Amino acid sequence: MSATTQPPSPSTRDKLIEVARELIYLQGYEATSVAEILEKAGANSGSLYYYFKSKEDLLLAVLETYKEMLWPVLLEPIFSKVSDPVERVFALLDGYRRGLEYTACTAGCPIGNLALELSDHPRVREKIAQNFEGWCRAIQKCLDEAAERFPPEMDRGKLSKFVLTVMEGGVMQARAHGSIEPFDACVEQLRDYFDRLMATAKPAARPAEQNSAKQTP
Amino acid sequence: MSATTQPPSPSTRDKLIEVARELIYLQGYEATSVAEILEKAGANSGSLYYYFKSKEDLLLAVLETYKEMLWPVLLEPIFSKVSDPVERVFALLDGYRRGLEYTACTAGCPIGNLALELSDHPRVREKIAQNFEGWCRAIQKCLDEAAERFPPEMDRGKLSKFVLTVMEGGVMQARAHGSIEPFDACVEQLRDYFDRLMATAKPAARPAEQNSAKQTP
Repeated sequence: MSATTQPPSPSTRDKLIEVARELIYLQGYEATSVAEILEKAGANSGSLYYYFKSKEDLLLAVLETYKEMLWPVLLEPIFSKVSDPVERVFALLDGYRRGLEYTACTAGCPIGNLALELSDHPRVREKIAQNFEGWCRAIQKCLDEAAERFPPEMDRGKLSKFVLTVMEGGVMQARAHGSIEPFDACVEQLRDYFDRLMATAKPAARPAEQNSAKQTP
Repeated sequence: MSATTQPPSPSTRDKLIEVARELIYLQGYEATSVAEILEKAGANSGSLYYYFKSKEDLLLAVLETYKEMLWPVLLEPIFSKVSDPVERVFALLDGYRRGLEYTACTAGCPIGNLALELSDHPRVREKIAQNFEGWCRAIQKCLDEAAERFPPEMDRGKLSKFVLTVMEGGVMQARAHGSIEPFDACVEQLRDYFDRLMATAKPAARPAEQNSAKQTP
């Protein structure tokens, strides 16, 4: 697109967001230059600054896109295949596992990367937090649907945030070791915690079956 | 120091590592330029390239320094005040909490930052993994000292890695939200898991006291 008085087409805006999203995911925000984004998007700086005041504003649009992608791209494809609410949580974690495998453990969660890189950028930090909150709400909805399987005193909102924490920490360990094994170990440990939580909930509901709930149908 | 045939003093090497460590911690690796390191260290590029072949080699030296700091700077000050092995684990997590508070949740674990920024740099990744492994060994030593308080089937090596995962994930959440609250919530959840593990270990050792171990002295 040449620098005329015509505004750049809305598709240019989408293209800039898409290219920025990919480059920032793979390289980080600081390591990605505006020039690189423009070149890969086939756009000029006039188009970029027509839609975005700054590189940071473009990043905010990228983070808004991630929020919009949560249901159709991340959750729906998994939840449509798995109906048990607790298994949906672990199926989602398995989705991150596949992402790690696909990139040979060099790339993990785009939001997690930005959380550590840009926590001193208040506007960015806020949009990162919104992304995490949307993710946790989806997990909490699963846990709420399985409420009777957890001890009544368990705060399922906090537990949903713990799932996110374990996912992000597990992704970090896999990337640090260049191996999926630490991620698997973390998910296994989380599963152990869930099993223990659910085992203690059952005897409380049905005291007569204590310690034999797993054996009797 | 001027560019003479005299080699730069070893203290210049230490100064370069110290300055690089601080700048990379606060800004990230990509965002920290060699020029900035030289200026803050009061050194010239000849000194830097006398000791380090590249910026990445300087980072490797920084990561080696973190390994050396693990015991005297991170662990010893905490372990000298807390003797109970399980409480040592939580006292260490509290140390990270203080770090978050000190930086208003803008900076957390320097190794975690680099793990997400540089997982595609094999030599760096390896040194990051070594740092994590040293940390986990220290935690596992604590858990091993309290072995009889955990269920016998519990893999304490894996549990030590889970503690690291929760710490790193909790630091990320605190930074994303600009608040210590998510970190506290994660540690509280980990404490709940530990409590449940330790509660199940006790009845197994003393079956007669099952479900009343906490009430009877």
